[in-house]
Amino acid sequence: MNFAELVLKNRTYRRFDESFRIGDQTLKELVNLARLSASGANRQPLKFLLYTKPEDCSRIFPSTIWAAYLKEWQGPESGERPSAYIIILGDTSITDQFGVDHGIAAQSIMLGATNQGLGGCMIASIRKEDLRKELAIPQLYEILLVLALGKPVEKVVIDDIKNDDIKYWRDKDRVHHVPKRSLDELILKL
Amino acid sequence: MNFAELVLKNRTYRRFDESFRIGDQTLKELVNLARLSASGANRQPLKFLLYTKPEDCSRIFPSTIWAAYLKEWQGPESGERPSAYIIILGDTSITDQFGVDHGIAAQSIMLGATNQGLGGCMIASIRKEDLRKELAIPQLYEILLVLALGKPVEKVVIDDIKNDDIKYWRDKDRVHHVPKRSLDELILKL
Repeated sequence: MNFAELVLKNRTYRRFDESFRIGDQTLKELVNLARLSASGANRQPLKFLLYTKPEDCSRIFPSTIWAAYLKEWQGPESGERPSAYIIILGDTSITDQFGVDHGIAAQSIMLGATNQGLGGCMIASIRKEDLRKELAIPQLYEILLVLALGKPVEKVVIDDIKNDDIKYWRDKDRVHHVPKRSLDELILKL
Repeated sequence: MNFAELVLKNRTYRRFDESFRIGDQTLKELVNLARLSASGANRQPLKFLLYTKPEDCSRIFPSTIWAAYLKEWQGPESGERPSAYIIILGDTSITDQFGVDHGIAAQSIMLGATNQGLGGCMIASIRKEDLRKELAIPQLYEILLVLALGKPVEKVVIDDIKNDDIKYWRDKDRVHHVPKRSLDELILKL
């Protein structure tokens, strides 16, 4: 798989085969990709929490908010939930300006996961205080992103955008459609 | 080159063979990688400006600030400057919250560039009002990141961090050393 194919395959997935478990070593390898990615002023202020056990995943799931545009759907049902999480924290003892470090890190991790036949979702809609309490995350660490990971079981397709409507949707076969703006729209000519 | 090797090869480069020019089509392909990457709530609020001509690069370079830790070095000299730029803008007619979209996009672009034998630097230290004026960027667009690209001519190595000193440095052979925190330091155990 070449790199362009990897980027294309790296869709946001929200339904997984929950019986497929992910090992701790896999998550460590993914965090190592983030470790080796760029960081503003090389400060490297991110920290990572890794969870692979079903009982831990059950504690995290209620603090995550899924697919705001799918009003009828409250997130993946039991059996289709993520089988691992990487929580990205900002260490405020290093800086309180995390810039886009967590975006860079998350993209490295997600591409690495896709490269291993996994997939997932970067979740910024988090019930942060619930999650902090549930996992006893010290106030020193800002909760930045939750990466939900698993073995995807849904089909995701990219559509051309119509009428400037960027809302993703599901068809009757539960195929997930994501309208993407065209390259011509994204590249400005001044 | 497997994905872990690509991430490792994708260092921040600041010295280039300026005589090696990059085509517009190459930049378009890189932006397409960003287009196909995740965007918060799928809003896709980023826009991209592409520059490959020497005279355009000369207009952009003075607005970029290089390598804050190298006090003796004011950035690449003529002959070693970037031969292309991608400027990432936020379209405020779509949202004024860009989250980490530009981090995700920049990482896709930089990995794609590395995959093609190129390299570069994500620059957030920008003289934004100078750049806006020079390129006549409308106020509608927030200037988020400048990606400087070229054919790298410097050697960059990763070192283990010592005494918590994250400042990169250059040795007598002009090899650029980047201290990176260990995986053990990054992965928290609560």
